[in-house]
Amino acid sequence: MEKIKITKSETSKSKPTTDQLEFGRVFTDHMFIMDYSTEKGWHDPRIIPYQPLTLDPASIIFHYGQTVFEGLKAYLTPDEKVKLFRPEKNMKRLNRSNDRLCIPAIDETLALEAITTLVGLDKDWVPSAEGTSLYIRPFVIATEPYLGVAPSQNYQFIIILSPVGAYYKEGINPVKIAVENKFVRAVSGGTGEAKTAGNYASSLKAQELVADKGYAQVLWLDGVEKKYVEEVGSMNVFFKIDGEVITPALNGSILEGVTRSSVIDLLKHWNYPVSERRISMEEVFEAAKNGKLEEAFGSGTAAVISPIGELSWHGKNIEVNGGRTGKVAKQLYTTLTGIQTGKQADPFNWTINIE
Amino acid sequence: MEKIKITKSETSKSKPTTDQLEFGRVFTDHMFIMDYSTEKGWHDPRIIPYQPLTLDPASIIFHYGQTVFEGLKAYLTPDEKVKLFRPEKNMKRLNRSNDRLCIPAIDETLALEAITTLVGLDKDWVPSAEGTSLYIRPFVIATEPYLGVAPSQNYQFIIILSPVGAYYKEGINPVKIAVENKFVRAVSGGTGEAKTAGNYASSLKAQELVADKGYAQVLWLDGVEKKYVEEVGSMNVFFKIDGEVITPALNGSILEGVTRSSVIDLLKHWNYPVSERRISMEEVFEAAKNGKLEEAFGSGTAAVISPIGELSWHGKNIEVNGGRTGKVAKQLYTTLTGIQTGKQADPFNWTINIE
Ligand SMILES: Cc1ncc(COP(=O)(O)O)c(C=O)c1O
Ligand SMILES: Cc1ncc(COP(=O)(O)O)c(C=O)c1O
Repeated sequence: MEKIKITKSETSKSKPTTDQLEFGRVFTDHMFIMDYSTEKGWHDPRIIPYQPLTLDPASIIFHYGQTVFEGLKAYLTPDEKVKLFRPEKNMKRLNRSNDRLCIPAIDETLALEAITTLVGLDKDWVPSAEGTSLYIRPFVIATEPYLGVAPSQNYQFIIILSPVGAYYKEGINPVKIAVENKFVRAVSGGTGEAKTAGNYASSLKAQELVADKGYAQVLWLDGVEKKYVEEVGSMNVFFKIDGEVITPALNGSILEGVTRSSVIDLLKHWNYPVSERRISMEEVFEAAKNGKLEEAFGSGTAAVISPIGELSWHGKNIEVNGGRTGKVAKQLYTTLTGIQTGKQADPFNWTINIE
Repeated sequence: MEKIKITKSETSKSKPTTDQLEFGRVFTDHMFIMDYSTEKGWHDPRIIPYQPLTLDPASIIFHYGQTVFEGLKAYLTPDEKVKLFRPEKNMKRLNRSNDRLCIPAIDETLALEAITTLVGLDKDWVPSAEGTSLYIRPFVIATEPYLGVAPSQNYQFIIILSPVGAYYKEGINPVKIAVENKFVRAVSGGTGEAKTAGNYASSLKAQELVADKGYAQVLWLDGVEKKYVEEVGSMNVFFKIDGEVITPALNGSILEGVTRSSVIDLLKHWNYPVSERRISMEEVFEAAKNGKLEEAFGSGTAAVISPIGELSWHGKNIEVNGGRTGKVAKQLYTTLTGIQTGKQADPFNWTINIE
């Protein structure tokens, strides 16, 4: 494994105060870069001062979107240690995304070492207030200057860090979600399973239209029949119906969330009935009608758990659990954030400490 | 309309010779850039020496693929004039793509003036040999440094130029095409209608797998039933069955090609039966079996007309027109390239001259 070369920044930028913290607007003092060429493979892993990228305007990333990314967080524990939550799962997913996008695989051990070294160097940027964290964004871009539609011969793997505020400024809070009937995010055989730019580009329009009507996010249905639940914005989704917790099965068009899999593990650990299967919007609305829809919530790195208080579909609205956060959502949120920040025991060994 | 500011390059790069010409590898001396900000709108249109872009690594283009592009060509006439082919159609499509991707519209007159001014300045780069041309690549990228999934507040509209070689080195030549049954390029409700990066990123894997088996391109089927013909790589597709020319109707997931619409216009002008409708792979193979599949060809800016000599679908192969270029394909190719290069009359006023 090639050694990571470190060039330290000569100055340090001023850090945002707790109430200045937003999501993804401010970046730390350093970044990680590694290059790829067909001749040399991945090479020259290095940490340098945070700085602009200089790219030929013909670079494939600008034209054909050959790119993948990841998203995870570093958390400060009460005794000022820095923890990562299941980062090896993100590195695995990065390589699954790479494979779908014809990008050469990255050594997962090196990628993880890049993250821990970079976060270690910018440790002072990990915010300490309740609910805050340091967001980590690894991404790969195709840099060959070539307008043919073909996999690039050159890439850069980059990691940047951003201190982020609490997702819920006033504690965990249910959101309103609109079920999307026109636009489609992904379809089986497409790129929905991969964490790649095009999926998000495709979602902007739908998101913009519902935001105008006061909804926080759209809930995507399958692209084929527009019947079955897929996921929400940048979260996987769960419904508690008649005592059972249900989440859509991984069908090729849904992102396999790290939080999703942790939620499933926790529920099983607690002996809650949980199933991964196909679930239609019809079933959800029918359950609501019969008083059996007990909870609905999203899961993802940004919000951890995001309770859904209202769902709108074809002009009909249902309120979930009286618009309040449900018991299971609450318990999952407390446990996951507890483990992530080292405030609770970590029975699954999900976290690692950064020196 | 804001005036385009020109900063000329002090040196001129050496130009490729005819046999060095490829597609999209070499770029001219200048490029066009215009900026967008929410406060100022599109502003500061300028031509500058061809140079790298400098972008914050958090720029939205690198993460969420908010980007669109166009592709058209400038042709040298026998009397050394430079012509564009229906560029106003590309500018209209650019804005339709912009709309789908939540990118602010660009003044089409200004965009066209940017192209003519830039091509005029780099006129010496338009190659003269048969089948060669200057490829024009306008594109828009989202430049705001922000990791939230939301439309960018800043963009750049850029135009670069690349002298390109003849698509068919030894004259127009039929290609082998594999019908794709697993991967999907686009689905109704997605971004297939727009010329945006994600569609092409999604296609790389399928393309790579068939290339290994000796096929030039994949033919995409609809994402819902995987039954109906959509398009080929970066071309629309036509079948001549029992005297009628058929091309898939614009259904929301197919790109509306400028060449496609010119082919339809020419066929109508010649009183050929032509129809835009849904056509299944079943129908194409059935026609082949009954000896009624007379021709198949793709249409697009790069190749103009690309005859299909063989189609493979679910392990079955059909040869089209004995693997030779059909009469209609040939006539379309000759007429379109004739009009584009000013060697034939232009009865539809499709071309414009650049001063
Ligand atoms: C489309 C999509 N689905 C689901 C998720 C949740 O995944 P994770 O729990 O790994 O953050 C994300 C965010 O990463 C996402 O972008
Ligand atoms: C997906 C796709 N379909 C069709 C076409 C053909 O369009 P046009 O004739 O405008 O070049 C292109 C190329 O531009 C394309 O990228």
